[in-house]
Order: sequence, then C-alpha cells, then structure tokens
Amino acid sequence: MRPNGRKFDELRAVSIERNFTKNVAGSVLISIGDTKVICTATVENNVPRFLRGSGQGWLTAEYGMLPGATTERFDREAARGKQSGRTIEIQRLIGRSLRCCVDLDQLDGTTIYVDCDVIQADGGTRTAAITGGAVAVLDALTSIGHEDAFIGFVGAISVGIVDGEACLDLEYVEDSKADTDMNIVMLNSDSFVEVQGTAEGALFNREELNTLVDLAKKGICELQSYQRGSFELSS
Amino acid sequence: MRPNGRKFDELRAVSIERNFTKNVAGSVLISIGDTKVICTATVENNVPRFLRGSGQGWLTAEYGMLPGATTERFDREAARGKQSGRTIEIQRLIGRSLRCCVDLDQLDGTTIYVDCDVIQADGGTRTAAITGGAVAVLDALTSIGHEDAFIGFVGAISVGIVDGEACLDLEYVEDSKADTDMNIVMLNSDSFVEVQGTAEGALFNREELNTLVDLAKKGICELQSYQRGSFELSS
Amino acid sequence: MRPNGRKFDELRAVSIERNFTKNVAGSVLISIGDTKVICTATVENNVPRFLRGSGQGWLTAEYGMLPGATTERFDREAARGKQSGRTIEIQRLIGRSLRCCVDLDQLDGTTIYVDCDVIQADGGTRTAAITGGAVAVLDALTSIGHEDAFIGFVGAISVGIVDGEACLDLEYVEDSKADTDMNIVMLNSDSFVEVQGTAEGALFNREELNTLVDLAKKGICELQSYQRGSFELSS
Amino acid sequence: MRPNGRKFDELRAVSIERNFTKNVAGSVLISIGDTKVICTATVENNVPRFLRGSGQGWLTAEYGMLPGATTERFDREAARGKQSGRTIEIQRLIGRSLRCCVDLDQLDGTTIYVDCDVIQADGGTRTAAITGGAVAVLDALTSIGHEDAFIGFVGAISVGIVDGEACLDLEYVEDSKADTDMNIVMLNSDSFVEVQGTAEGALFNREELNTLVDLAKKGICELQSYQRGSFELSS
Amino acid sequence: MRPNGRKFDELRAVSIERNFTKNVAGSVLISIGDTKVICTATVENNVPRFLRGSGQGWLTAEYGMLPGATTERFDREAARGKQSGRTIEIQRLIGRSLRCCVDLDQLDGTTIYVDCDVIQADGGTRTAAITGGAVAVLDALTSIGHEDAFIGFVGAISVGIVDGEACLDLEYVEDSKADTDMNIVMLNSDSFVEVQGTAEGALFNREELNTLVDLAKKGICELQSYQRGSFELSS
Amino acid sequence: MRPNGRKFDELRAVSIERNFTKNVAGSVLISIGDTKVICTATVENNVPRFLRGSGQGWLTAEYGMLPGATTERFDREAARGKQSGRTIEIQRLIGRSLRCCVDLDQLDGTTIYVDCDVIQADGGTRTAAITGGAVAVLDALTSIGHEDAFIGFVGAISVGIVDGEACLDLEYVEDSKADTDMNIVMLNSDSFVEVQGTAEGALFNREELNTLVDLAKKGICELQSYQRGSFELSS
Repeated sequence: MRPNGRKFDELRAVSIERNFTKNVAGSVLISIGDTKVICTATVENNVPRFLRGSGQGWLTAEYGMLPGATTERFDREAARGKQSGRTIEIQRLIGRSLRCCVDLDQLDGTTIYVDCDVIQADGGTRTAAITGGAVAVLDALTSIGHEDAFIGFVGAISVGIVDGEACLDLEYVEDSKADTDMNIVMLNSDSFVEVQGTAEGALFNREELNTLVDLAKKGICELQSYQRGSFELSS
Repeated sequence: MRPNGRKFDELRAVSIERNFTKNVAGSVLISIGDTKVICTATVENNVPRFLRGSGQGWLTAEYGMLPGATTERFDREAARGKQSGRTIEIQRLIGRSLRCCVDLDQLDGTTIYVDCDVIQADGGTRTAAITGGAVAVLDALTSIGHEDAFIGFVGAISVGIVDGEACLDLEYVEDSKADTDMNIVMLNSDSFVEVQGTAEGALFNREELNTLVDLAKKGICELQSYQRGSFELSS
Repeated sequence: MRPNGRKFDELRAVSIERNFTKNVAGSVLISIGDTKVICTATVENNVPRFLRGSGQGWLTAEYGMLPGATTERFDREAARGKQSGRTIEIQRLIGRSLRCCVDLDQLDGTTIYVDCDVIQADGGTRTAAITGGAVAVLDALTSIGHEDAFIGFVGAISVGIVDGEACLDLEYVEDSKADTDMNIVMLNSDSFVEVQGTAEGALFNREELNTLVDLAKKGICELQSYQRGSFELSS
Repeated sequence: MRPNGRKFDELRAVSIERNFTKNVAGSVLISIGDTKVICTATVENNVPRFLRGSGQGWLTAEYGMLPGATTERFDREAARGKQSGRTIEIQRLIGRSLRCCVDLDQLDGTTIYVDCDVIQADGGTRTAAITGGAVAVLDALTSIGHEDAFIGFVGAISVGIVDGEACLDLEYVEDSKADTDMNIVMLNSDSFVEVQGTAEGALFNREELNTLVDLAKKGICELQSYQRGSFELSS
Repeated sequence: MRPNGRKFDELRAVSIERNFTKNVAGSVLISIGDTKVICTATVENNVPRFLRGSGQGWLTAEYGMLPGATTERFDREAARGKQSGRTIEIQRLIGRSLRCCVDLDQLDGTTIYVDCDVIQADGGTRTAAITGGAVAVLDALTSIGHEDAFIGFVGAISVGIVDGEACLDLEYVEDSKADTDMNIVMLNSDSFVEVQGTAEGALFNREELNTLVDLAKKGICELQSYQRGSFELSS
Repeated sequence: MRPNGRKFDELRAVSIERNFTKNVAGSVLISIGDTKVICTATVENNVPRFLRGSGQGWLTAEYGMLPGATTERFDREAARGKQSGRTIEIQRLIGRSLRCCVDLDQLDGTTIYVDCDVIQADGGTRTAAITGGAVAVLDALTSIGHEDAFIGFVGAISVGIVDGEACLDLEYVEDSKADTDMNIVMLNSDSFVEVQGTAEGALFNREELNTLVDLAKKGICELQSYQRGSFELSS
C-alpha cells in the first residue's frame, strides 16, 4: 500500500557514510531512501557575543538545498539574497536538536558549525540532517580531543497520517498528501528533544498523537543503530 | 510557589477586547497577564500566485514586536532590514494555526491578513497572538458576510516544566528557566492543530509529555470561553 | 464646514496617557482625534560612534505604522526588508525635534531611543509622535535621575490650506485634499524647532505662510497644556 | 567676515552649463561656488502603477554623491546596498520641488527621471540639484515636444543663521556651524514650493524666520536669471 | 617537484560521473584531483524578458560553495544575504562559456539552468564546473529531445606560472603561490571561448602567454576525452 | 569603414585632465572618444582585516555608472540596493590592474580607494577607468609623499573582431556587434597584467588571439604617452 511495498512502521534504506569529503573535521553523507544530505561539522575558536565569558561553547546549524535537489529547480537562496522562512525554521530546529547531544560546558570558547546541504530531496530532509549531523558532530569533537563532551546520538524521524494510516518515515509523495506531519527528535528511548506536530488537512486527536509518537520512537531506535554502526564499519 | 501565588494549572488574567482600533475589519487587543498583543485582520481581494484558479482563499499572518515591548529595547526589524529567525518561525506557526479555523474553500479569491503586534511582552506572545487572532478572523469574516466559513475558535497556550513542575501558561520569568517549553494549539477538546515541544535544558519523557498536553487542553478550553465571551459582551 | 463641525483653528480631541505599557522608562499613548500613537522611550548606556569621547549623550527616534493602522493594510516594512522613504523622512524629523527638548551635554554616555508606533492613523501621525514623544522623554529622563536635562516640551502640529481655508490640525480626509501641508515644531511661543511646508497642489504665498505659522503657534500652545497636564493628572 | 569676503546676501559664483553630456534629453552641470552637480533628465514611456489610467504623467528624482565629492571619501551607497536616510530625504525634496515646474496633466503616460549626482560638494548640494534640475527638465520636455508643459523655473537656495548673522547660500564651513539651516524653494517671487527650516543649535524666532525667507527670495530671483540665461547663451 | 610528483603538463586524476542525483535532467559529479563539483542542469519553459519574442532560448549558470568545501569554513552566502564578488564573477564566466556549446536558436522559449556547487575545493573549481557543466547540459538537451542543439563539449582548465615554471591544472597550494593564473576555455583545438589571464605577483610576458595557452590546449583536449568517455561508459 | 573613418589600429581622441575636482588627492577626467570617466583616488589610514600586521598597504577600486550616462537610463544601483554582476566584475578587474602599478610593501597601513564613475558611456568604460585611474593613483601617492611606491602607468584598452576585422578601441556600436571582445591591461611593452578575451558570437582562433594582442599593445603604448603627458602639461 505504501510505495515499494514498505510497511507502515518501516524505515527506508538508510546509509551513513563518514569522511565523505576532506577539509573538514566531520563530513557525513546520509541517505534515507532517495533523500541525501551532506552534513559537515567545522570547529571555530570563538563563541557568539552572548556567550563570551560564560564558560560555555556553542553549536549552530545551517541548512540549504542545492537547486538541483528537487524536481522543479529550487531557487538558490544566495542569489535571491534571502533565506526562506522554511529554511530558517529548519535550521533553527537542527541547531536546537544537535545542541542536545553536546555538553557545551566542556567547550568554552569553541563553536561547532553544522552545515546540512541537501543534494537530493525526497521527504524528511530536516530529520535526515539531524541524524547525519549528530554523526558529524562526534567526528568534529573527536578531532579536537573533546569526544567526552558528546552526550549521545540524537536521532530524528518524520511520522504522519497518510490516507488514515499512521506511517513512519514519510517520503515526498506521502508527505504531500499527509493529514498530519510530525517531526520527532529523541536522545534515547524515553528522552524527547523536540516534538513538532502539525495538522496539514484534518486535525489529529490524542490517540493519533500517541500512535505517532510510538512509531517515531521505534524508527529513531533503528536510526541510532545506523549512527553507531557508521563508526564500527569505518574503524 | 509561582509568581503571584498562581496555581500550576491556572491561567493568568485574560481579557479580549474587540474593536480595539478602527479602520480594519477585525481588531482585537488580547491581554494574558502582562502580555498584550494587538491582532488585526484585514481582507484583500486576491490570493497568492500558487492558489490562483484553485477555488481556494488564503489566510496568512505576520508577527512583530514593538521596540518598547520588552525590558531591553527590542531592535526594530524594519530598521535592521530583516525579520529574525524567531519572528519568521512564530508567524509561520500563527498562520498555520489560524488557517485551521477557516474553511478556505468558501473564500475563493480572498486573502485574510492577520497582523499580531506585541505591545507588551511577558511570555506567551505567540499563543496569545493565535488566541486573539482567531477572534479578529471571525470579525473579518463577518465583515464580508462569510461568517459561515468560520470553523471554530482555535486556542493556544504554552506549558512547560519549571523547577520540576508542569505549569500552565508560563510568564517570562518562568519561561526563561523552563526545562521544557511546549506550545499547543487546539480547535476543540480532542483536536490538535499543532504541538511544538522543545527541550531547553533537561529532556522530557513520555509521561511529562502527557501531563503537559493535559494541562494545555485544560487551559485552551478556558481560553475558548473568553473567545466566545468577547462576542457576548459586546453584543 | 470641517468634519464634525470643527472650527478652522480648533484642535481635535487630545488625550495623553502616560505609563501606557510597562517594561520601559517612558510609555505614552497619545490620541489626537482618531490618530493614536504609542511613544516609548528607552535608555541605553552607550552613544553612537561619532559621539564617543565627546562628553555628549544622544537621542534618536524610530517610527513605524502597524499594518492595521490604515484602511488599506499598510505593508509591514520588516517583511519587505526596507523602511520606506516616507518612514525615514518622518523618523529623522522626530529625532531632530526631540533632541531640542534635551540638554545632551548632561547625558554623557547615554542614548535615549524614542519609538513611535502608529496603531491608528487619521492624519498628523508625525506631529502626534513628536508631541507624545516629548512626554515619554521626560519620563525616561526622570527614571535615570536626569530630569534636569529636560529643556521643555516640544510640541508639533500640522496646518494646511484646504479648499482655500487655513486649517489647524488636518485629519486624513483634509490632508489628502490640502493644497499646502505644513508641519511645525516649536519649543515655546517664539522658538521654532522645525518648519516644513510643502505645496501639494497650488503654491503658497507669503501671507499664507504667515497665517499658517500663526495657526500652528496657537495649536502648539494648547498641546503643551496637554503635555503638562499629563503629569498633573497622574501625580 | 564670510569666506572670500562674501556679503551676507551674496550668492557664490553661479554657472549653469547645458548639454554637459550626450545620450540624454537634458544634461546640466550646475556650479554654485565649489559645489558641482550633474543633473540629467531622461524620459520614459510609462508611469508608476498608481497613476495608470489617470491621464497624468510623473516626474521623479534620484540623488547621489560620488565617493570623491567630499573631503573624506563618501561610502558608495550602491556598495553598501542601501541609500542613507539623508539621500532619501534629499531626493524626495528634489522630486516634490521639480514636479511643481511641470504640468503633469499634459504628460499622460510619460515619466521624467531627474538624476542629480554631486561630483564636488561644498554645501547646498540639494538646492543646486533643484536649480540645475529645473533646467534639465525644460530640455527634456523640449526634446519630446512638450515645452508647453513647463510652468516655470523652480529655484532653490539655502539660508541660515551663522554666528548670529542671517546669510544667503551657505558653503560647507558655514553650514557646519550654522544655528539654523533653511532650504527654500520658490517658483516666483511670491510662490513658495517648499520651506524647510531646522534649528541645528539655537532655535529660531519669528523675526529670524522672516529675515531668512526674505534673503532666500532675493537669492532665488538671481538664480532664476541664471536659469533663463543658460538658454540665451547657448542659443 | 609538483605535489605527488605530477609533471608540469599533467592533469590530476579526472572522473566524471553522470546521473549523480535523480530529480533533474542532467546531474554530474566531476572530480579533478580533490576538487569535486556537482553540476546539475534543469530545463524551464520560459526565457528572460530581454529574449521574449526573439526566437532564442537561453542558458544561465549559478555557482556556489558548500560551507564545508574548504579548510576554513566558507560563510554561507544565503545566510549573509549576498553573493560575493568572486562568486558572481565565476558564475558569469560559467554561463558565457556554456552558452557556446549550445545553439540557442534551436531552443526558443526554453532556459537551461546550470548549477555548479562545489562540495570539495582544491583549486580549479570554476574550470571543473565548466567541464562538468557541459556534460550536464548534453544530458539536459537529450532529455527534451534537443541533442541536436548541442554544438560540442566546451572544456576548461587553469594554467599558471609557479616558481617560474608553467604548470597545467593548478591545485590549491600551487594556485596560492602562482605568479600568473590563467583560465582558458576552448571548444576545440583551435577555438577559444574565453582566455582570462591575471598577473598575481610578477607580470607575464608574451612568451609566457604563448606557453600557457599551449599547455591549456593540451589539457583541454584530454578533458574532452573524459567528457566523451562519460557517455560511452554509461551506455 | 569604422565610424568617423577611423583606421583599424587607431585610438579615438584621448584626453586626460588632472585635478578635475577638488577635495580628493587624485581626480582625473579621462575621455576616450565619447566615453568619459571621473577617476578619483583617496587615501585612508587603515587596511582590510586580512592585511593587518602584514606590513602591506592596499588598493581597491569601485566602479559606477551615472543613470544618465547611457542612452537608455541606467538604473541607479544604490536605489536597487545591489550592484549588478557586471559592475562587480568590472571593479574587481580595475582593482587587480591598479594594484600592479603600486608597490604595496611601501604603503603599510594605508589603503588607496580608486573610484571610477562613468558620466558618459560609449564603449570601453572599464579600460578607460583603468587608464585614468592609474593617473589618479600617482597623484594620490604624491600627495602622501609616496611617489616612490609608483611602479609605472598601467594602461588598458579593448580590442575585438568586428565584421571579420581586428579593431583597436571599440566604441559602443562596434562593441555591440563584435564577435570577440578582449580587454588587455599592460604595464609596459612586454608585461601583461590582465588578458580577458571572450567570444561573443563566433569563437576566436590562435592567430586572431595573436593579432588582437598586438593591436592592444600598440594602443596601450599610445595611452601611456597620454598618461605621462598629463603630468607634463600641467606642470
């Protein structure tokens, strides 16, 4: 009933490739189905003004979409001179989420920049960015000898109600007809970082909310295996 | 234990004043405690390009903060030439939420603009904007003879975990030390429009999520009485 | 002959409400007829670069119009990313005028920001902003123990020639058909701060210039009574 | 007592050179003392949206300062991506003033653009721009066979109170220490287009206002001789 | 003497991978040494205003650098709100060059957008973008049945004088100390599209100019084999 | 066969007027045929961040076109809020070229700004800007007692193939139909600073490249006589 016969609670194929590019401390290509995002993490020796003298480090994220990532060309935001509201909303979510996997108190004077650039989009780009970004963050922390500041892998997935059924990991054709779309970010099986649910068409009730949260929890646990696995494979 | 001896599940004082200014179809001053937002709704005879010929109308929202609304002057975004990420995130939430109280199929060729300008900020400005905005929307629909397109009052409230306690309707001093901050938007007692929960400090678990949703539901029911009441009082 | 039977040399109803909002040192709601402007004054401990080390303080003003202030929705300048020429011209006038009611030599290292936001527009918004702003400035100076730096209330009013008659305090329907429109700012009965007269349709001659200046002087004297009165009432 | 022994009511040397550049309908180099402004007028076959179908033409003006026009390099506004408040205020004044020398009812469907670019600045650039611009406008109207739409030469001059003396045509060193600075625009000896007086240091009284207006009137009459003369000399 | 023992007239390892991503008509990953650029080509059914009614199609290019492509993080231009001068200069060169491999007369009403995004930078990104872009253009033309409009593969390479020696295909460490840096674009062995030589340190003489042009010609011939080969391999 | 019977290897009339305006250290009006550019050079006591502490000075250039310089009005870039790609490309070329006539090692802590503003455009504005700019630079260096840092006059000219003939110094009507357009910058008869050749219509071959370079060399030698001559005439 879902595209390619996927089950309602089944993730698409996941791959996480570390060291995808050189030059930066952390560089990850994450693929979740046909969604592909390059996540890089770089380290700079400064913090934003509001943290100077606080003893805290910082982590911030930026998100972009290559013009050729979508079926209809996506206007280049650098050329338009402005990031869209959608882009800004997404990168704020990524930043908040990834800050939860780092103990900023151990990073005084240091900022980690996580850049998530979508090279192919098929739904779930923001959650793929968070999941891949967490891996890049660990590589970046390791590169500066601060792997102890890593709290754990934050994972994220989208869930939604499509044609009346709660589904895990929506791809684009599902996402565009979903009645409810929810993005959930977790650190472990009972620790929520972010829950963002939006009624797109029909509203959702308490029971549906519960079902969706359960689905997401299952998916995120699996994603965290891939995150951990990416370190085993490459070592 | 809360400021002014408020109970954990108690709203601040609420007032909703319709027809606060002339010139526009809907104009509401909503006060929730010391948070005060002017919500105006205006009607224009056009729709965005992506809806032309679709038979659908549209509703969009913008949000602003007067420079004197906060204790430290809030830089005027028009002067900086750019809306902040926070502003953009908030006005997208308001727009999505208020679209759920209107049957856009009945509004072909019409756009309703809801402008929410905070004149005094003490926490919960985005949820006050949604709650007050819904009232302005009904007045705007009535002004064009389309009150039938009004589906119902969407209400919104913030809830959060402060010092380990789940609290309803956070004011600024609470919000700034909350571990979890959640904004919930509902149409009625079992219809969610939006659930946005963010771990600020400690993460939240499933039980806390449930408790916060319950608290929000209680608060929103009360807010909807105020929304309905604002029409009785003034008739 | 004027709307509501007003006399040619008669002001509209004036009210000046101090402490309209909390959070800032000076907060005034001024109403002149249906024109309503919130004027807030905030104090910051720095001065612009060109004044550092000069021993002088500074006062600057910004002006805005809420989107719902006018009959046709006024595009939000923060969203357009640019203040209009009209806005910039007005806020420069407000700033220059209000600097004349403060002895900047006594305010070394301090800047007063005056924000004037129009919530309802019916002509004369810039002169109302100056008149109300002066009151907010005195409250701000008092809040930092510098009431001695207050020189006096600057008042401002528009005058114009409408249908061949010199009129005091133009409301919108008059302003839009005026041949000449003049904004005058005075500190006292023989001290001009600013005289800005513009021929909109027919040009004006020397005699008309004199008549308009006389009318403005009368109106400003009355406004200054309201400014002073706002302190008596509230004490 | 004034620089170069100028009398208080004496203009600096004035020259108006028509056809300063090719390519455009009107091109004037005006020099008033060391202030030099290139004023060009071009004609386009369209009008702004708000005039379409009104039967009226339009005239608009833009003002710029070459980076090398001033002693300290003037930052290029195109590079900064923003016109300053001063520039915007000035070009609005130029536009309003020059619209008074054209009967727009005769120019249906046509816009005249007047560009005033200062190549050397020594005080009075905005009034020189208006005075030179009026000459370029007549050339532009003639080029399209509409010289009948020309109402007359608008002339403009600055006056001010410097060291207690009312002076005509302030140069930079005078302007920077003036107590009052006034820009006056006239069409003929008893027709005012614009009066803009600003107290810079000390305020001005009614008698000073009268004296300054008289001085300006004298100066503008002389400038209008130069404007007329520029056509006689070159024919 | 060169890094990795490369000969002065030797290219780095070249690979051209077609169909690197889905969703677009042409998608190429080109690697030249450690420089990697994603080149996508998309087709839209419109042309810029200046070509409407001309019977001609158009091709335009945009260039970007992912923040993690360089050793020091490269500021995201979308976030800064402005493309740098370098970016603009590069994308204009790419556009001019690629227009030479298409017969625009056969593409009435159609625009091809070529987007070149650098994911890893090690010198020669603009010439790699042109070389890879030409391959994406052929795929895009084929996708709309217009392969006949393809004139031929334009190839591009950088050459320069490093430590007194003329070198082909500069990598970053060479480029940064080159005395002369030249980018050459050719369609075939005696057809130049663009020659851009810049003295960075020492100036270059006529003989050096000739030597560099010869070197570039050799390198471009080899690149064109890779371009052709990318079609054979994948068919 | 060329306009005005010019020979293929003949420059248009050249004039270089030093001290064209006051206020700045170097001010040159260069006319090449009907192309007229004001080049000013100003000196500031600071260097860009990337040079601080390096012991080096800097030279940078900006380019602009007055709106009335072209037959169709050229939109003012300051008003549009953005410099065009063409402007940015040109001013980067001017800056790179003029840096070659100065020994920056002798100018520690100093930046020379060269502003080139076209007041009349008839082809070749960028090369006229470089040629005139070099003269302004020498005047600026002399004004600060650093004439020893002047290496020599850089000269620049455009050449191109028009109707099959290689031509020196293209004017606008030639430039707009040229098949190849090349801008060449030289310091002396065998020292190239920049070679930029672009195929506009037909591509160019090696022989044409050689012919164009020879033509440019001849023209630049003549321009350098005018540059030197401008100092003799005025002394």
